[in-house]
Amino acid sequence: MATSAASPSAPPSPVPASATAPSTTLGPAPAANPAPAPACTVVIFGATGDLARRKLFPALYGLEREGLLAPATTVVAIGRREKTQEEFQAELAESIRRHSRFAPDMETGWTDFSRRFSYFRLEMHDTAGYRRLADLLDREEAARGLPRRRVYYLSVMPDLFEPITAHLKAAGMVGPENDSRSACYRVVIEKPFGYDLTSAEELNRQIGKVFREEQIYRIDHYLGKEMTQNISVLRFANVLFEPVWNNRYIENVQITSSETVGVEERGEYYDKTGALRDMVQNHMLQLLSLVAMEPPTRPDSESIRDAKVNVLRSLKRWERPADVATNVVRGQYGPGRLGGKEVAGYRSEPEVRPDSTTETFVAMRVFVETPRWRGVPFYIRTGKRLPAKATEIHVQFRHLPNPLYPSANGPLVPNRVVFRIQPLEGVFLQVNAKRPGAHTQITPVALDFCQNCAAPFNSPEAYERLLFDVMRGDPTLFTRWDEVRLAWEFIDPIVEAWQRTRPHFPNYAAGSWGPAAAGTLLTRRGHHWWSLQDKEG
Amino acid sequence: MATSAASPSAPPSPVPASATAPSTTLGPAPAANPAPAPACTVVIFGATGDLARRKLFPALYGLEREGLLAPATTVVAIGRREKTQEEFQAELAESIRRHSRFAPDMETGWTDFSRRFSYFRLEMHDTAGYRRLADLLDREEAARGLPRRRVYYLSVMPDLFEPITAHLKAAGMVGPENDSRSACYRVVIEKPFGYDLTSAEELNRQIGKVFREEQIYRIDHYLGKEMTQNISVLRFANVLFEPVWNNRYIENVQITSSETVGVEERGEYYDKTGALRDMVQNHMLQLLSLVAMEPPTRPDSESIRDAKVNVLRSLKRWERPADVATNVVRGQYGPGRLGGKEVAGYRSEPEVRPDSTTETFVAMRVFVETPRWRGVPFYIRTGKRLPAKATEIHVQFRHLPNPLYPSANGPLVPNRVVFRIQPLEGVFLQVNAKRPGAHTQITPVALDFCQNCAAPFNSPEAYERLLFDVMRGDPTLFTRWDEVRLAWEFIDPIVEAWQRTRPHFPNYAAGSWGPAAAGTLLTRRGHHWWSLQDKEG
Repeated sequence: MATSAASPSAPPSPVPASATAPSTTLGPAPAANPAPAPACTVVIFGATGDLARRKLFPALYGLEREGLLAPATTVVAIGRREKTQEEFQAELAESIRRHSRFAPDMETGWTDFSRRFSYFRLEMHDTAGYRRLADLLDREEAARGLPRRRVYYLSVMPDLFEPITAHLKAAGMVGPENDSRSACYRVVIEKPFGYDLTSAEELNRQIGKVFREEQIYRIDHYLGKEMTQNISVLRFANVLFEPVWNNRYIENVQITSSETVGVEERGEYYDKTGALRDMVQNHMLQLLSLVAMEPPTRPDSESIRDAKVNVLRSLKRWERPADVATNVVRGQYGPGRLGGKEVAGYRSEPEVRPDSTTETFVAMRVFVETPRWRGVPFYIRTGKRLPAKATEIHVQFRHLPNPLYPSANGPLVPNRVVFRIQPLEGVFLQVNAKRPGAHTQITPVALDFCQNCAAPFNSPEAYERLLFDVMRGDPTLFTRWDEVRLAWEFIDPIVEAWQRTRPHFPNYAAGSWGPAAAGTLLTRRGHHWWSLQDKEG
Repeated sequence: MATSAASPSAPPSPVPASATAPSTTLGPAPAANPAPAPACTVVIFGATGDLARRKLFPALYGLEREGLLAPATTVVAIGRREKTQEEFQAELAESIRRHSRFAPDMETGWTDFSRRFSYFRLEMHDTAGYRRLADLLDREEAARGLPRRRVYYLSVMPDLFEPITAHLKAAGMVGPENDSRSACYRVVIEKPFGYDLTSAEELNRQIGKVFREEQIYRIDHYLGKEMTQNISVLRFANVLFEPVWNNRYIENVQITSSETVGVEERGEYYDKTGALRDMVQNHMLQLLSLVAMEPPTRPDSESIRDAKVNVLRSLKRWERPADVATNVVRGQYGPGRLGGKEVAGYRSEPEVRPDSTTETFVAMRVFVETPRWRGVPFYIRTGKRLPAKATEIHVQFRHLPNPLYPSANGPLVPNRVVFRIQPLEGVFLQVNAKRPGAHTQITPVALDFCQNCAAPFNSPEAYERLLFDVMRGDPTLFTRWDEVRLAWEFIDPIVEAWQRTRPHFPNYAAGSWGPAAAGTLLTRRGHHWWSLQDKEG
């Protein structure tokens, strides 16, 4: 297989050998790890919940294995349930065994890791309980000779954000910031961040009573994924892409995040939320921002987020119901077949109303009204019970104005850059080449880099990077308030337009690629959805 | 593995399924074959020679297997030796067995193939012999009901070109063209086409007495290679490359054709020729023309060759000895180690003069003085007894003016497009990506398409394409006279400058990458030779 050797044969290279990439099938070696984040206390609210068990504990173990946790860092796991330390330790071990990317060898570093944890039982509205927690944290920090460097991770329903943060303040657990030169307090919040602009603003106002914007880390775990981070790197660390990354060369952009699952155990939450709020308002618009943003003026977190904000501010709003009807497609799955099995329709899922009008699919056409992107449609598509589980971004280039090589089978297939975000991680470039043989026939081939196609590359989980960044105070990969606000300003009018008419649901079969209108959204402009590279998740 | 699917998921694609590319590791399917070339008579002079045995017969068998030979096409194999038809058939079979890409299954079509051939003994200066040959050809054509459609393939030393063509004319074997509306005569000539401009002009004048320019097919077999043809396709059938294919984005171009062998049995010829005439005047300048040419106005053979001629005309000539000394490096190998074996120096090779000053290595810097390429050095390198057998073109892009992501290890590795001509066939793009891990470190990775890396893809041999093109009368992949002339005009002053001083030979060890000066040619401009992807031939 081809390797990407950056070293010259002779004379000695100005590029150190460590900069050479190994085989493309194995992907590049992981980066040499940076120093561990400064020691801190991570306080996880909702530590007996699903997210903690499936993502947060395994991510912390990943950081342990990568040497990125300072020796004095500890974790206080908070839950409502009565539980002995031994019971909690057993649950922690089970979580790592089942969900860690290092599971086959989880003994390594296990003692160091498990002794960081202590379980603390707390009713979320129990004022005395917070005071006991405050005392515990102070005592433990004093015992370790640490300043108050705390990460409060709110892995709880959003209606608990306000009471928990208010209690933290009342118990003296978040300041004053100047109690010590090295003290700091950060709070991590999971989606959903509001239900619409009004509720998001209210939530932000409540949290803002306790934490300043720069202390608030709003997680969008798509931003922690390796290939999401690679969008900016590929765009801005290569001279080849910037000259063609604009409406002169790009015909359209397609962002798909498809799931095969239905609502699983989240029926009650999902039925109140729907795909537009659950996926588009956050993940999809974030991916769009990274593809569309102007080069940041500097590589710091505020410049990068400023550049993303400018994209969200430049989105053409679909405000009139007619615009929404033309540019946004909603869908809900009925019964169907997926993976060889019959599956139920959405309205038959547990905890879903039998006449629910909640959308489980959204496709839309968006325009970014900047000089770079004027006239280029960005197509977004996300849904449940689709044929594949994958997140991919296809950047389709224009047809050649006057091709020297007309294809025997019609026009040449246009060039494409494809970012594979998950489950495959990579990027490829579709180009036209000569088909081997005795005359010149053109065929599309892929110039391909896949990090985990051939071998299951052990990429860090998104939550590892994100937890590490919280601990070291780098907010680049977290959503700033103005991003959240602008995203809701874009989403709200669509919801309002939808509420005026009752949809004809279900309108797609489980196991299909959504309602027919999601296809005609593109075909009426001469486009079509490119099939995903990751057909099977 | 990633496949390059061009078909959309839904709705039905405008691109037919046959246009989708299969797995990148297997490469695209060969083109559906065109119709066979019109029936003709191929007359091979020198049919008992090395080229016929190793290349021409196997190529004809390849065309047979691909269904590209018309049923009535025959081959007259001409040699000086007395040989029965049975003896010749045995040699033909042996040639296919040893050298055909279809050898493991050579029985298929064998009878059809072998009955096309007849052996004809001819002394090259025997006038009566030519008359007998003329009678034979006329009789056989009449028997098959064919017009005089003849390809005279001169697989002989150049000093026989003139006598053979003169005899062909004297015996009435080349015309008049209007003896029949479908009659035609073509002559195929192998390199060397002259030894310098004067001898090339003389040779051309002699052949020109018998054949018009459009009847003369000068073979440069590098032009028949699959990936050589792909240079134009990739440049002109993709919207992505043309915008950056100029001096604004490209820093330099490196064209290497390296051999591991010494002179083998060709010592006598090679010692009179040298690497500059044997490789640079033809193959290397042809590759350079394809990389550098402007888009042809139309996809026909004259427009394409016009575009190449314009490159050769725009080459900055090294005429003053000081310019030659600065921009051209010559070398000759001494003894050394290659592939784990001791090998002799050039001056000890059979039939080489023990004080020979013939160069076995050339490196040079060339400028193409067009607006597109002003200031961009094209580095050419070719030689014998180098560490690898490979032909590759590396197009190196400029450094980013103001990179957002400085590399921890110094500047970012520049982008590169690499055409692998042989033995691996493919193209890759070196880009910078994020190294997986907890902070943003940049590493070069390859976006790779390799036609024959994973599996030994059975690419057509260059000679198959070229013979097929002669038979159907397409001269695109053959060298026009003005290309030959301009190439000699570029080469001659270098030879003259070299003749004024005696080189210090040998100046590189067999198994090394040539003399040190070949490296400093680049390093004094801040460049370096990129190592070849194909380390082992």
